Amino acid sequence: MSQKYTIGLDYGTDSVRSLIVNVENGEEMAGAVYNYRHWKEGLYCDAPSNRFRQHPKDYLEGLEFTIVEALKKVPKEVAENVVGISVDTTGSTPVAVDEKGTPLSLTPGFEENPNAMFVLWKDHTAVKEAEEINELARKWDIDFTKYEGGIYSSEWFWAKVLHIIREDAGVFRAAYSWVEHCDWIPALLTGDTNPKTLKRSRCAAGHKAMWHEAFSGLPSEEFLIALDPMLAGLRERLYKETFTCDVAAGKLSPEWAEKLGLSSNVTVGVGAFDAHLGAVGAEIKPYYVSKVMGTSTCDMLITPMEEAGDKLVNGICGQVDGSIVPGMLGLEAGQSAFGDIYAWFRRILEWPLKNILADTNLVDEETRQKLIEETSDKIIAKLSEDAEKVALEDSGIVALDWMNGRRTPDANQALKGAITGLNLGSDAPRIFRALVEATAFGSKAINERFVEEGVRIDGVIALGGVAKKSPFVMQVVADVLNMPIKVARSEQACALGSAMMASVAAGVYSTTLEAQEKMGGGIESEYHPIPENVEKYQKLYDKYKKLGKFIEFDY
Amino acid sequence: MSQKYTIGLDYGTDSVRSLIVNVENGEEMAGAVYNYRHWKEGLYCDAPSNRFRQHPKDYLEGLEFTIVEALKKVPKEVAENVVGISVDTTGSTPVAVDEKGTPLSLTPGFEENPNAMFVLWKDHTAVKEAEEINELARKWDIDFTKYEGGIYSSEWFWAKVLHIIREDAGVFRAAYSWVEHCDWIPALLTGDTNPKTLKRSRCAAGHKAMWHEAFSGLPSEEFLIALDPMLAGLRERLYKETFTCDVAAGKLSPEWAEKLGLSSNVTVGVGAFDAHLGAVGAEIKPYYVSKVMGTSTCDMLITPMEEAGDKLVNGICGQVDGSIVPGMLGLEAGQSAFGDIYAWFRRILEWPLKNILADTNLVDEETRQKLIEETSDKIIAKLSEDAEKVALEDSGIVALDWMNGRRTPDANQALKGAITGLNLGSDAPRIFRALVEATAFGSKAINERFVEEGVRIDGVIALGGVAKKSPFVMQVVADVLNMPIKVARSEQACALGSAMMASVAAGVYSTTLEAQEKMGGGIESEYHPIPENVEKYQKLYDKYKKLGKFIEFDY
Repeated sequence: MSQKYTIGLDYGTDSVRSLIVNVENGEEMAGAVYNYRHWKEGLYCDAPSNRFRQHPKDYLEGLEFTIVEALKKVPKEVAENVVGISVDTTGSTPVAVDEKGTPLSLTPGFEENPNAMFVLWKDHTAVKEAEEINELARKWDIDFTKYEGGIYSSEWFWAKVLHIIREDAGVFRAAYSWVEHCDWIPALLTGDTNPKTLKRSRCAAGHKAMWHEAFSGLPSEEFLIALDPMLAGLRERLYKETFTCDVAAGKLSPEWAEKLGLSSNVTVGVGAFDAHLGAVGAEIKPYYVSKVMGTSTCDMLITPMEEAGDKLVNGICGQVDGSIVPGMLGLEAGQSAFGDIYAWFRRILEWPLKNILADTNLVDEETRQKLIEETSDKIIAKLSEDAEKVALEDSGIVALDWMNGRRTPDANQALKGAITGLNLGSDAPRIFRALVEATAFGSKAINERFVEEGVRIDGVIALGGVAKKSPFVMQVVADVLNMPIKVARSEQACALGSAMMASVAAGVYSTTLEAQEKMGGGIESEYHPIPENVEKYQKLYDKYKKLGKFIEFDY
Repeated sequence: MSQKYTIGLDYGTDSVRSLIVNVENGEEMAGAVYNYRHWKEGLYCDAPSNRFRQHPKDYLEGLEFTIVEALKKVPKEVAENVVGISVDTTGSTPVAVDEKGTPLSLTPGFEENPNAMFVLWKDHTAVKEAEEINELARKWDIDFTKYEGGIYSSEWFWAKVLHIIREDAGVFRAAYSWVEHCDWIPALLTGDTNPKTLKRSRCAAGHKAMWHEAFSGLPSEEFLIALDPMLAGLRERLYKETFTCDVAAGKLSPEWAEKLGLSSNVTVGVGAFDAHLGAVGAEIKPYYVSKVMGTSTCDMLITPMEEAGDKLVNGICGQVDGSIVPGMLGLEAGQSAFGDIYAWFRRILEWPLKNILADTNLVDEETRQKLIEETSDKIIAKLSEDAEKVALEDSGIVALDWMNGRRTPDANQALKGAITGLNLGSDAPRIFRALVEATAFGSKAINERFVEEGVRIDGVIALGGVAKKSPFVMQVVADVLNMPIKVARSEQACALGSAMMASVAAGVYSTTLEAQEKMGGGIESEYHPIPENVEKYQKLYDKYKKLGKFIEFDY
């Protein structure tokens, strides 16, 4: 047979990337990256109030650019032999759409309205609405949050929908339905964006929208009306059925086939969340935590359905049949901020550069900018280098990693971070070290919760930018977790995972496991806990928990 | 009569300054500053372990330089009509001396030994010894700490002596006695450095060495031996009697008269602590807190002896008859770090400048240094400017000002600072604002303690670098204390206070009050609390106390 190829499309927070993969051996043929144009300019966002919106044009431009550019880099035969495309995106990142499924910001009158755009996963404007959902859920006969860890987050679908329609009457009136980013792209590619017929992802529905077979779908109309009468009727205009990402959403529409330079015989897979397909790409296996480590983390674990039983894991981000790997129970947890905490500290240290050095007259404008950039760019690396030299426990500093709230265990976006044990000798590397330790403690708290709730953990497979680039951080995490950590080889685990699922959706392979075995890149490196550190970190972790308890309950 | 002049000599942490003052009207004729040579180079110190030592040569060089230089700036008649010199220094800053009263580091074999040098007030190496003193004091029939607020500090005389002799057998064997910095300089000037006869200051003895008339002097030999047999016999080689700073220590020795270009008819006053004479210079009056605001603070309050009664104020740094103003009960409290906390934060922000920008090849070495200096120098001013624009309560950040331990209320140098309420939007100015608020809360905690213990406070008179230079900080402190703050006019309140006391010691005036009335500079500005801020700060102060309680007792 001639070679076959699939394309994985991975929509991240700042950019989208494509990856063309040889389905037979996983060879990564070519790829391309597109940085969102509007997003890069900071449009439609307001960081101090945690409002983060993305314009659908960014997604559309990136879709065309990354596939066309990647195809330019490979022989024509490759394009001719692409058999499938699958897409992963951030989530929950929903948008209000009209009857045709067009995001409102692509319709007249809404072009510049942030409420008519995609509400990015990390948007925290809906804190109040999340609280209302939790309050109502506590009182209701059926606990609709029970498969989502028992606590609904402001980062998720219903909180966001409710917040937007309350805030923006125009969007409320014009919004026929709502669509997740990971559902909109496949719908677009297949040419069926009808909100009532487009195939909805099990990931998004199960983990973020309280969809579950046991509820016959989404939470009941009564529940939603009790939450707010403004939600009346919306349930009917959403969906009942959901699909795992081994299912085909349809074939590539002639329109998009032409745009992209592909045949209309290409299968488009049902979409999924980036972290989930990252776990697939990194060859997640049962009872291993697949940890995507970037600005935040997503900690995923799969267990065979037959072993999962009726067990409910409290305080995580949900447990959904087939959400990560079709046929397995997918459990998801995560830290609201990980690398973002290091970036926050870098921003603090950059302050004199950007606010004082930027105005100097000692050098010309161009040199000034270069000096600022050069210095900023080196901060994290130099901090890591110096922090690594600080002896464990030496600084006495203990920090709490809740600078972006806490996703798990027990979601609470209102929580904040802290740094204790400071003295006049606490320098930047010592504080940085404590922040790194705090993010590792946040990871440990998640692992502990899984174990407390009866889900064993056999190991950790790490992926994402931090896992690849920060040996110092990774060693701390291994020591704190007291568990070896394998780092997946693929530079683009999410896109690779999408390409794997595309091969299943297109029928090349019949199971995810088969695709992983053929296309996976294996392990690149492994971190082993250093025994003498393990014990010391346990003590610091006890302080971390004590501090957290005080901040959360008594402060 | 011809004009008369006195010289005030003020030994601070980094430098010593002289001030020649016209006793009739307080006119400041001239002065000079000397930055300690060895200290500037960081010799004999180890900041991470809080070891801070000063070489007596720094004091000697500064003594001669500042007086000679100041006299060069005034007509010859002024030098001829100098009638008195008084000295203030930091404290408790003791040194081990031989039988002649010579600091060991000025004797052969000890020249480079930090343990043979002055142990600077802020040296915290004796934390363990302070604990032992407190433990023993709790068990002893007489509580020797009761006039020092009930808690003995690692910053004080006995803790430091005990720490040094335990650590350094050579110094232990060679040390005949110990002398405070404020006692050594007048002793030197009068030519009598004999440890058994030189006049010891009431300030140092009463506030730092548990000396009290009710104890017939220093703590009993039995107590000291119970503390450590190594202390046996030392009490006898120290002192029984102490003197207030209106008393003459003697006349200027011919040797020093010649060195300085003064007559040997000049009266040398008994020495005192810098903060106390600063309070005198700033015209302290009964029931006003005289607050020296610099790297740390010293908060002083005087009450007429007849009104003081037998009342003991718990948790402060002592109450001593005549320690601040002869004839009044002098109460002392203070914050272990104030401006030092702002400087600490500046150092953190400077880190990329000094560790990354310093290595750039984009500009030459000279420009590099200039850029770093220019940027560093502007950090605090720019932070203040931006922090002032942040609305009160807006950031949600609450900090604890214990980065250098806590001096009062309830000394505990082992405590550490903290910053809570951090999120990814917490930028440098917001954190700085919280640090400023925390130092103000530390001030409030001291005022509250005085009032709780039955000492009323009618107002605050501020002096020191922060009071003069930081209107933003001063307004926050006024709002937090809910009390108007007057800022004393003199730029050199400590040196001026010394010059005032020299005029009393020399017999020009018969009381401190008289000298203050003639020589005082009055008030320069006043800060009034803004009512709407007062209430908001009260809420934040409640959080500060809650946080402090947790950090101190439950963490």
